[in-house]
Amino acid sequence: MPNDKGVIVVLSGPSGAGKDTVLKKILKKSEKISLSISVTTRKPREDECNGRNYHFISRNLFEKMVQNNEMLEYVEYCGNYYGTPYKPIDELTRNGVDVILKIEVKGGRQVKKLCPEAVHIFVLPPSFKELETRLQIRGTETNEAMNERLKIAKKEISAALQYDYIVINKDSNQCAEDIFEIIQVEKLRAKRMEHTIKVLIDA
Amino acid sequence: MPNDKGVIVVLSGPSGAGKDTVLKKILKKSEKISLSISVTTRKPREDECNGRNYHFISRNLFEKMVQNNEMLEYVEYCGNYYGTPYKPIDELTRNGVDVILKIEVKGGRQVKKLCPEAVHIFVLPPSFKELETRLQIRGTETNEAMNERLKIAKKEISAALQYDYIVINKDSNQCAEDIFEIIQVEKLRAKRMEHTIKVLIDA
Repeated sequence: MPNDKGVIVVLSGPSGAGKDTVLKKILKKSEKISLSISVTTRKPREDECNGRNYHFISRNLFEKMVQNNEMLEYVEYCGNYYGTPYKPIDELTRNGVDVILKIEVKGGRQVKKLCPEAVHIFVLPPSFKELETRLQIRGTETNEAMNERLKIAKKEISAALQYDYIVINKDSNQCAEDIFEIIQVEKLRAKRMEHTIKVLIDA
Repeated sequence: MPNDKGVIVVLSGPSGAGKDTVLKKILKKSEKISLSISVTTRKPREDECNGRNYHFISRNLFEKMVQNNEMLEYVEYCGNYYGTPYKPIDELTRNGVDVILKIEVKGGRQVKKLCPEAVHIFVLPPSFKELETRLQIRGTETNEAMNERLKIAKKEISAALQYDYIVINKDSNQCAEDIFEIIQVEKLRAKRMEHTIKVLIDA
């Protein structure tokens, strides 16, 4: 493949790390970067829109997709499935579009197995204190739920070292720029340039 | 180590790829990027200056340095030794300075063994025709010597795929920018962030 194939990016990080804000800023930087929309079997919330937040599908269809190896990764969480179908990502990257998958650490591991050329980026808050503050501001959590989230976050952060890159979200503009630059630089990886080299040697 | 340690960069590429021009432009971008000065046992040419082009030392001293494991890499070429002493590089990177080693493929392999965290970048000309033109313009070569150089270049380019990154020097400003960005992005590699993560988890 020529090196103008799009890059698959796995983006993970604890709740409160600010992934959504950063994502919006990355997507504004280029039309050639797209966000993968997951499929789920859970019911849409009132403010959610099919095809924007998720593709909402039946449990039956989801299980068929898993059986047909159509999922790049999937998890079951609180009785609902969440997954990333491979086909739309493949079409986008073939057309030179970079695709970002905002998924959990567990899903990221599945992507690594099926798609070793994917780039794994972990977003961290600048400190635990900052993470706590952000979750408090969000205000959707009880104290107990928040402590639980912080405990999970600490565990997830240990997983960060298995990622390729770690970006610290101190300033969301800088963080978006860091991730954007990682994607550009990954296109210069020798393993993505085999085609270019062969053309040059044979010329 | 904290992640503000400098990065060691191995830069290779065939003669005529334009490494020197690109290097000058990279060095202008930041005071925190430095070029490693090799030591050699060959005699200085008239226009060469000790400590700028090379450190010119005796064969006896060079061999002592090799015996004392002071060399990150070295080669013997046309009866002269050329090598990279480790100590000055270590001092610079500890002070947060990135150090670029402009060395051959063979030397690059030695660095990879002794210093697995080094980043290896291969500079390519945009085409073989362009490489030929550049060597003709340089005009220092006989036809025979040039054909020999082109043959070697073709062999070296096959080695490019063992490097981490490949940059094509179509435009020297863009090429310098690409290499500069690679260095910045490499600082976000998870393996360089272990210290940062530990601080965050323990906080």
